[in-house]
Amino acid sequence: MTEKPLILVTNDDGINAPGIRALIEVMNTLGTVYVVAPDSPQSGMGHAITLDSMLFAEKLENTDGPQTEFSCSGTPADCVKIAIRQLLPRKPDLCVSGINHGSNASINVIYSGTMSAAIEAGIEGIPSIGFSLLNYSWNANFEASKTFVKTIAKQVLEHGLPDGVVLNTNIPNKDVEAIKGIKICRQAKANWVEKFDKRKNPQGKEYYWLTGEFVNLDQGKDTDEWALENDYVAVVPIHFDLTAHHFINELRTWELNPKNNKQ
Amino acid sequence: MTEKPLILVTNDDGINAPGIRALIEVMNTLGTVYVVAPDSPQSGMGHAITLDSMLFAEKLENTDGPQTEFSCSGTPADCVKIAIRQLLPRKPDLCVSGINHGSNASINVIYSGTMSAAIEAGIEGIPSIGFSLLNYSWNANFEASKTFVKTIAKQVLEHGLPDGVVLNTNIPNKDVEAIKGIKICRQAKANWVEKFDKRKNPQGKEYYWLTGEFVNLDQGKDTDEWALENDYVAVVPIHFDLTAHHFINELRTWELNPKNNKQ
Repeated sequence: MTEKPLILVTNDDGINAPGIRALIEVMNTLGTVYVVAPDSPQSGMGHAITLDSMLFAEKLENTDGPQTEFSCSGTPADCVKIAIRQLLPRKPDLCVSGINHGSNASINVIYSGTMSAAIEAGIEGIPSIGFSLLNYSWNANFEASKTFVKTIAKQVLEHGLPDGVVLNTNIPNKDVEAIKGIKICRQAKANWVEKFDKRKNPQGKEYYWLTGEFVNLDQGKDTDEWALENDYVAVVPIHFDLTAHHFINELRTWELNPKNNKQ
Repeated sequence: MTEKPLILVTNDDGINAPGIRALIEVMNTLGTVYVVAPDSPQSGMGHAITLDSMLFAEKLENTDGPQTEFSCSGTPADCVKIAIRQLLPRKPDLCVSGINHGSNASINVIYSGTMSAAIEAGIEGIPSIGFSLLNYSWNANFEASKTFVKTIAKQVLEHGLPDGVVLNTNIPNKDVEAIKGIKICRQAKANWVEKFDKRKNPQGKEYYWLTGEFVNLDQGKDTDEWALENDYVAVVPIHFDLTAHHFINELRTWELNPKNNKQ
């Protein structure tokens, strides 16, 4: 590549989160960086988009490096859409999202704003990676993450990714020396068992707080959860063709047509 | 089944939308119905969940049928979580979401609150179906939809669904006589090409409206978009294991480990 790669950086914790600042720092060593990220935290936003309201996207004048930055009032998916269609000089060569403060492994990928931004870029045909650190704290230490982020991003810039595939990368909350390496994994079959903490407001109206416990019943050693528990960085290639191809033939044997007309 | 099936009904257009009222009417003929749905429209919410705020869930006293109804301040995924963990007498035998006012075929499944509710129930091991009518209007006619909804829901109650599989059903905006039947399909590879309409507010600050055009480049005759264009109801079995299994082996050949340690 004669021209430096153009890299879009986004996240769901908001443009001021330490995780995205670490990601910007690494990407500045790999290419020309545009940041388009939410102006406020958007965790748990899933793949929400803003259909019923306007969006603000404001260019920030004083940045801490060579990158160009826009703060956007929308969701992570909105940020990617407006970046690609409106704010960037051309289609980027890479989109990176994160580094999320907290895990997006296993079923968390479904709820994740970080991953929805990465998927949105993937839908647009842009090689795209989501990065998450297994530490929910705002003051998490991203030093070890930077090493792995750089290697993975460089490889994606070099190889590209197949059409429709995005990488979901989760990083153990450890020093770099304690991390054993990178494992390519499948998404563990795990879920959240929620509890609702029921309270009453001063007017006597009931309300609830959502709490939950993460339960991993997947015994496989090829899962992201196994890798993370064993001090590996977990990389899961994901796609957004949700078709359960394995069930199509059986479903075709059902008596689904109310009028008994054959397919 | 000696006991009547317990059916959870939800949606993303809000509890007062004509689409969910039509769905409730059909489900009342099949089982004992609990409705837990958003108190306001939540379209385009993707798989958002409420992590940073409390939830209200209010039982409605005067309903238009035998169903039990709760109006919830959360997202569609929140509604399913609180229904299962807090509001229903036991785990439901079926969850149905919709009938959405507008298509959730092809890539729209990713952005859809209707489908996120169905997927959330699927994660909990509940056979689950999302229904959408290809008419965005509040005054859409759901008469033809009711026929197909009933047949499909009955078949799912009879057969169950494999672990991890949910059905995405889209219905043409036609009279029942004009609909040729049901096709089992794969998700079409289509996407939105967005445009941002840029304006200035009275204070001179720029803002944007998201608009877009749907583009289907998938020529396959086995897709949901093909079925709908040809007057068939499209049923796509979907799953929430996003792993791109076909790319795992190739990805394992990449030089991803910064420390050159082998996996």
